[in-house]
Amino acid sequence: MLQASQRGRAMPLSPYRRLSPYADAAKARGLHVYHLNIGQPDIETPPAMMAAVQQADIRVLEYSHGAGTLSYRQKLATYYQRADIAVTPDEIIVTTGGSEAILFALLSCLNPGDEVLVPEPYYGAYTAFSIAAGVTLVPVLSYIETGFALPSLAELEAHLTERTRAVLICNPNNPTGYVYSRTELEQLLDLCQRHQLFLLSDEAYREFCYDAPYVSALHLGPAAHEYVVLLDTISKRYSACGARLGALVTKNQTIRDAAFRFAQMRISPPGLAQLMGEAAADLPESYFDHTKAEYQARRDRLVERLRAMPGVVCPRPGGAFYVLCRLPVDDAARFSQWLLEDFNHEGQTLMMSPAVGFYATPGAGIDEVRLAYVLNLQALDAAMDCLEHGLRVYPGRRN
Amino acid sequence: MLQASQRGRAMPLSPYRRLSPYADAAKARGLHVYHLNIGQPDIETPPAMMAAVQQADIRVLEYSHGAGTLSYRQKLATYYQRADIAVTPDEIIVTTGGSEAILFALLSCLNPGDEVLVPEPYYGAYTAFSIAAGVTLVPVLSYIETGFALPSLAELEAHLTERTRAVLICNPNNPTGYVYSRTELEQLLDLCQRHQLFLLSDEAYREFCYDAPYVSALHLGPAAHEYVVLLDTISKRYSACGARLGALVTKNQTIRDAAFRFAQMRISPPGLAQLMGEAAADLPESYFDHTKAEYQARRDRLVERLRAMPGVVCPRPGGAFYVLCRLPVDDAARFSQWLLEDFNHEGQTLMMSPAVGFYATPGAGIDEVRLAYVLNLQALDAAMDCLEHGLRVYPGRRN
Repeated sequence: MLQASQRGRAMPLSPYRRLSPYADAAKARGLHVYHLNIGQPDIETPPAMMAAVQQADIRVLEYSHGAGTLSYRQKLATYYQRADIAVTPDEIIVTTGGSEAILFALLSCLNPGDEVLVPEPYYGAYTAFSIAAGVTLVPVLSYIETGFALPSLAELEAHLTERTRAVLICNPNNPTGYVYSRTELEQLLDLCQRHQLFLLSDEAYREFCYDAPYVSALHLGPAAHEYVVLLDTISKRYSACGARLGALVTKNQTIRDAAFRFAQMRISPPGLAQLMGEAAADLPESYFDHTKAEYQARRDRLVERLRAMPGVVCPRPGGAFYVLCRLPVDDAARFSQWLLEDFNHEGQTLMMSPAVGFYATPGAGIDEVRLAYVLNLQALDAAMDCLEHGLRVYPGRRN
Repeated sequence: MLQASQRGRAMPLSPYRRLSPYADAAKARGLHVYHLNIGQPDIETPPAMMAAVQQADIRVLEYSHGAGTLSYRQKLATYYQRADIAVTPDEIIVTTGGSEAILFALLSCLNPGDEVLVPEPYYGAYTAFSIAAGVTLVPVLSYIETGFALPSLAELEAHLTERTRAVLICNPNNPTGYVYSRTELEQLLDLCQRHQLFLLSDEAYREFCYDAPYVSALHLGPAAHEYVVLLDTISKRYSACGARLGALVTKNQTIRDAAFRFAQMRISPPGLAQLMGEAAADLPESYFDHTKAEYQARRDRLVERLRAMPGVVCPRPGGAFYVLCRLPVDDAARFSQWLLEDFNHEGQTLMMSPAVGFYATPGAGIDEVRLAYVLNLQALDAAMDCLEHGLRVYPGRRN
């Protein structure tokens, strides 16, 4: 049999998929499984966004402009302006989800074999995109003891080589929920300026900052403009993951031109999603108040419940909708599987993401899990009851 | 200013974009411009496909499965079965347009630096995808004198190197409209078997074959199964380019596994488009009768008109909705620009695609253009009147 390419074989399977057969089997046995393992919001997609598609009068669903329709880019620019990010429609390339923005940024900023620094743990798909783009991710550990704050400049600089071309951050962070401070971002910009690196800033969770105002990489002033490539998506903020609509935003024209040429190869981003995006930009500012309050209440409850469990180490993340915590277990992947395979609490159990899927460094995060708070408070409480009981009776418990 | 990557700068701008400012200017001067330059069908998107989206009851527009929803893959499998392509839902990976299927196929079958043979002229975006995937396209000339038939096996073999891993065909062909015969496909399969090459078969225009029944690479029997990767899209056959919905279909499991891992990195294909795809698979077989008859009538008219113009060499393409013809001019790109800039016939002119955008070989196709027959017969006739007059008075006419 003719074999797949080496890079095709090197691509990791999503860690989610490794556990999902056990979740399916648990459900087949009649258990209720609380899914805290995936960042799929439960919040309703705004009806106005669905209506924009459902009421559209479309005779021929044509290709749009390669960078997205002008009308959507105009509306998206007003959205950014409201967030104090002063960009013009010309500085936006509409992409097929944030995913394509990540891929286009890597292709446009880095040559094959170039390196990109990324604070670890990091969003698992970055590994996949780096393989697709033929670049090397260089992880720099952050630590649960500091709430996964930015690694020090000295640590970052220790990982620089002649091939380093960029730093990639996710802010607010998936999987840690950490929100980088203005000081940290200014340090990063300084690093980028001194070493001529791009600052690729994945800001998918911008609206979900609970303890301090959000600082975007494009809030750092004109000195940042040539370095920053903002990667964005409507998936999380409007609970519209299935639309597949994102954006690459940069004031660096050479990157914009290159990204546009990559965008041209696939002719256009999804057409119906762009109608949803226009409606999203027209939502009242108050839309986010409700969603953010809901997530904040969940964060508070989840952290409170986790901290009350003996042996659990849980930072209080400032944003996104994830908590990355340490459990008193031998191996969090084994424990997660055990919860699905050998445990139930009153007919219920929960599914979590073992944190090893977010680390590249061998052994790192072995006793950590990521929990996504994409369930309502009642369900979260029930899931935490399961976890609490599970931790008590798990044979691999450590103290 | 921090510069884009070499590959970002190496990406070609679409040839369409080079001429479009002249088309815009012509319109600004009040001219009517007939667009025969782009493969954007004018046929109505089937109302049942739009209704599937517009009547859907969606509370949360969630991610779908990475390979596409099972319900869509099941329906798509029945579509293929009706076309005598026996595939199961498991053998299908739903992609974001045919574009993503091309990218995933190159990533899954070839390593960086590997080579893929492609009959020339070829779909311009293949160049862009090969740069993105870090592979090398090796063009093998076909000739207008044979209607752009497959280059001989000897010619193809003369271009093989140690790095050759695949042959990429578009069948029916964009830009030539040529439809490969069963004999030609069997020759290609033989080549692939002898040299252990993948046969990447882009079949976006499957339904539009006017003179003979369509032969798919997956019609070649079980011996072809490990070699063939079928690349597909709903864009052309249902006039739904803006949906961005395609598929990669293969019976080679190692390729399917690799492509699925690449698919996982972007989590899922567009959600609303998959609803359209399900409705498309449910359309009656008779849907294609009307569309195909319309395109066939246009092909016949266009060929007849072009052949009646002195000095024009026009094959009679068997499929797709393109004609690639030779004009009696010094330079078809210059002529195309002149038609927009310095010419009009009763307030009208036309826009064509200079064929140089479909050739990599320097100088090849310099006096050729591609015409897409995506206008009704009346508009096509008017456009041909413009072309006929233009050829008469163009200062760079050759005899």
